[in-house]
Amino acid sequence: MSIDQSRTAADGVSALADRLARLAGQAGVTGADAILISPGPDLEYFLGHSVGSHERLTCLVVPAAGEPALLVPTLERPGWDGTPVESLGIPISTWTDGEDPYRALAAVLPPDARVLAVDYHMPAVHALNAQASVTGAELTLAGEAIAELRMRKSNDEIAALAAAGAAIDRVQLRISEWLRAGRTENQVAADIAQAIVAEGHQRPDFVIVGSGPNGASPHHEASDRVIEPGDVVVIDIGGPMPSGYFSDCTRTYVVAPPDGGQIAADAREVYDLVRRAQAAAVAAVRPGVSAESVDAAARTVIEAAGFGNYFITRTGHGIGLEVHEHPYMVVGNKQVLEPGMAFSVEPGIYLPGRFGVRIEDIVVVGDHGPVLMNTAPTELTIVGAS
Amino acid sequence: MSIDQSRTAADGVSALADRLARLAGQAGVTGADAILISPGPDLEYFLGHSVGSHERLTCLVVPAAGEPALLVPTLERPGWDGTPVESLGIPISTWTDGEDPYRALAAVLPPDARVLAVDYHMPAVHALNAQASVTGAELTLAGEAIAELRMRKSNDEIAALAAAGAAIDRVQLRISEWLRAGRTENQVAADIAQAIVAEGHQRPDFVIVGSGPNGASPHHEASDRVIEPGDVVVIDIGGPMPSGYFSDCTRTYVVAPPDGGQIAADAREVYDLVRRAQAAAVAAVRPGVSAESVDAAARTVIEAAGFGNYFITRTGHGIGLEVHEHPYMVVGNKQVLEPGMAFSVEPGIYLPGRFGVRIEDIVVVGDHGPVLMNTAPTELTIVGAS
Repeated sequence: MSIDQSRTAADGVSALADRLARLAGQAGVTGADAILISPGPDLEYFLGHSVGSHERLTCLVVPAAGEPALLVPTLERPGWDGTPVESLGIPISTWTDGEDPYRALAAVLPPDARVLAVDYHMPAVHALNAQASVTGAELTLAGEAIAELRMRKSNDEIAALAAAGAAIDRVQLRISEWLRAGRTENQVAADIAQAIVAEGHQRPDFVIVGSGPNGASPHHEASDRVIEPGDVVVIDIGGPMPSGYFSDCTRTYVVAPPDGGQIAADAREVYDLVRRAQAAAVAAVRPGVSAESVDAAARTVIEAAGFGNYFITRTGHGIGLEVHEHPYMVVGNKQVLEPGMAFSVEPGIYLPGRFGVRIEDIVVVGDHGPVLMNTAPTELTIVGAS
Repeated sequence: MSIDQSRTAADGVSALADRLARLAGQAGVTGADAILISPGPDLEYFLGHSVGSHERLTCLVVPAAGEPALLVPTLERPGWDGTPVESLGIPISTWTDGEDPYRALAAVLPPDARVLAVDYHMPAVHALNAQASVTGAELTLAGEAIAELRMRKSNDEIAALAAAGAAIDRVQLRISEWLRAGRTENQVAADIAQAIVAEGHQRPDFVIVGSGPNGASPHHEASDRVIEPGDVVVIDIGGPMPSGYFSDCTRTYVVAPPDGGQIAADAREVYDLVRRAQAAAVAAVRPGVSAESVDAAARTVIEAAGFGNYFITRTGHGIGLEVHEHPYMVVGNKQVLEPGMAFSVEPGIYLPGRFGVRIEDIVVVGDHGPVLMNTAPTELTIVGAS
């Protein structure tokens, strides 16, 4: 069983070659002499293969001018056989335990490289030691340059996101099998985690079961709290598919109140408000509008109802080979949306000590409007009625 | 279910306070005005709690002079309630989506801080943006300063490593239940992964099943290769315990040859050689010797037998809250071993296209010699005999 497993690229070798060429172009535009990429989603995006990140240096070098090169630890060299790196014709250099990996890195950099742009995720130890290996080197971030490419999904990537959305929707549609009064959040979460795999994911990446007051903490995961009748419960779940592309979908449920009673009026009010805000933000998605305008579309609805102080997060995040990536739907982000951009739309209201409500879909910018990757219904669902 | 779950600190709050005070001292020694620590094992070591690392900045600031401070995203603030951070009296600042987290970070740095030392794992995006938030700031690595503390395990940490060693030993002792001809590496690995959890780990972190030629690739994990009679099979497994401390143990097995035949003579020769080398390196462990001398003890044995070119890795790595950490048993590492240091001793011989042999134990430096955290026997074990 491979824990840090390599993933199947959604696109073929010619797409990878195109990405590498465009990245080299981005390097030139941003003034970098070379872009350095360490294991993680960026490496996966450009090579169709990655490895676990650890203290031994693995680094892809993409010069603004010249050909890419890959440096790997000698003991991991066999793991690159048969990967797209071969078809791409990228030469692989190695360094052996006891040697200085940063000297080996400097040897594969263009001789005159001084401005080194590193990927967002590169551990500081590699970034700063790479800088130190080149006299006079300046370190910058390649994240924006890389995001320029990764933000714009290909048709194959969108298909991968749609498959991920369908898989997590199937789990949301089964929530009533597991969510009921008397069980703990952890028990419910364990069942959901199994279903996430059963419905086609590689693994669960996050399983948030926020019942009652726990739902008021947006990143609460799950606890030993026993779910009570009438609880409002936030279920925010997702993980990577075999393609490497992530799902991420939130629905908020209400556990049947005791003795056939009514749902708390304010729970229904808040739920309906969040649902309207989410629909408004989804409806705002189209080419040419800014990312912050999608946030504003949700926020305006919630603020108008007097709940603005309880909407304590941004409205959404990009998604792809990472569950959070560019573009972010947040105030201040002037990024103009283009067809193929993919992100979550997930406004919420969080009432400390009481409950939270969040509704989240993944949306792709289509030619004229939003294309939803999630289709699980957003009507208020009451579970566990006897 | 918490995927990026917080872990139970092996030591109590007073030990955490002591670590923080010593880290501030290290900052002074290394010339840093403040040490910045992001989510991961370092944060866990100093706060007894951590969170998942992602694009939103969480950062512990430990000034050389003054009191520590913690910056977290507003939406994660509730998750820090009830953690040791409260008992430690560390003030928690927050920043909200749409605000600049690096400006918020600058506000909790000492006003005159210029030399900022970041932990090894900090993503480049956070390290470089932290630097950019302070005029004239210089970025350095805090890794060595942190390693000075983390390398020297407390008695509680050693107890946690011993419990981890016992748990993974129980899995190694059950390998004959799963490993036999006709099964794939992945099938065997899936069974082992379940047993790793059943024997007390949080989760499997790595499950290497390297059969036949796959064993010649040290970081091969597992594949669909069908195991054959007579195969030499490297089983290298481990994961974190609920304490957060890791296990890591390798044994190499031989699958019974067909028709009651003999094990290949060279497999036995190589196995015995690796076993002698591993024992020699373990025997070399004591206070006052260098890390590289432990590597040399194993390498000398293997080189003398003419297999030096096939021992392509260092001899070992430190272990604790990470599966690989300081000190490394590698040529060039002059680090003098002290009581309480913990690391693997895992020489191997890797014959391309044929097979590999590796034997690995975790060893703690005792007052006078090695203390083994693994006690599974190292005699050649033949499995799957009918």
